[in-house]
Amino acid sequence: MKYCSDCGASTSLKIPPGDTLPRHVCQNCGTIHYQNPKIVAGCIPEWHDQILLCKRAIEPRFGLWTFPAGFMENDETIEDAAIRETKEEAQTIIELAGLYTVFSIPHVSQVYMVFRGTMQENEFGAGEESLEVRLFNLDQIPWTELAFQVIEETLKLYCQDRATKHFSVHVGTIQRPKNS
Amino acid sequence: MKYCSDCGASTSLKIPPGDTLPRHVCQNCGTIHYQNPKIVAGCIPEWHDQILLCKRAIEPRFGLWTFPAGFMENDETIEDAAIRETKEEAQTIIELAGLYTVFSIPHVSQVYMVFRGTMQENEFGAGEESLEVRLFNLDQIPWTELAFQVIEETLKLYCQDRATKHFSVHVGTIQRPKNS
Repeated sequence: MKYCSDCGASTSLKIPPGDTLPRHVCQNCGTIHYQNPKIVAGCIPEWHDQILLCKRAIEPRFGLWTFPAGFMENDETIEDAAIRETKEEAQTIIELAGLYTVFSIPHVSQVYMVFRGTMQENEFGAGEESLEVRLFNLDQIPWTELAFQVIEETLKLYCQDRATKHFSVHVGTIQRPKNS
Repeated sequence: MKYCSDCGASTSLKIPPGDTLPRHVCQNCGTIHYQNPKIVAGCIPEWHDQILLCKRAIEPRFGLWTFPAGFMENDETIEDAAIRETKEEAQTIIELAGLYTVFSIPHVSQVYMVFRGTMQENEFGAGEESLEVRLFNLDQIPWTELAFQVIEETLKLYCQDRATKHFSVHVGTIQRPKNS
């Protein structure tokens, strides 16, 4: 952030009085511009024993697989966001079946919140951000072609829990890969 | 947002191609400025049968009671944020005992994520944002002097679950009060 979004003057990085972290502070009007993590809301859509995955038609990770997920918008709930993203990316209607995973990803300042969802009909399709949308048996998940580590970790937990048929909420952290 | 934080030119509200919602778009450089909900991370600090609450020394709701909670920062995990806020506001060290509640508050574009936490010692104090910090038995919680509805709903669930000693993750929504 170089300029104040309130008055257009230049900002500078400094620690405001009573604060502990550097913030973008307007040199003219004094507004402090905080920057905070974003929530990515997602869903694992289930159709009997299969799950629905999308091949990304956008960067980053064009051409790799994910479950429907995207940035939560202002004025909506996490559930709204998960249902909306599933409709947009996989063109399917789900009924949510509970919060499933919460992953902090501190090196990109994101928190993924993923629900399980029951597809209401065996109807789906590729939205604008998807090249292809397909149902997968769990033993067909394209592990080497998943878009992000958080997708892989979530689906690993999902496969474990499907084996025991006990789904609890998992909370974890995705650390920065050692080679980046 | 009136001005572009990248180049300082004026922004206007419009729906970008392929999008469905109006965004602040720079009239000069074309940058799209998304605005997203913020995460408030909090903790119910436990000391044996008591919990630790803070009387707010800041607006909004100056002088009313809350458990420690505040905006999650970039580059940290939700757990980091809950522990940090508890240290800052109540000057006590906790060991987290699991995620407890997740509340969307769409009319203010916030998501509260609250953990239970075990105080490591019976030592605490009022940080800069607190007037007073006190341990309460559950039958002493100042219900009519709580700062926010999300605090009240979370503590109601907590009291119910303490009765059964079974704490699961609760996910819910705080709707806009009807009289506002």
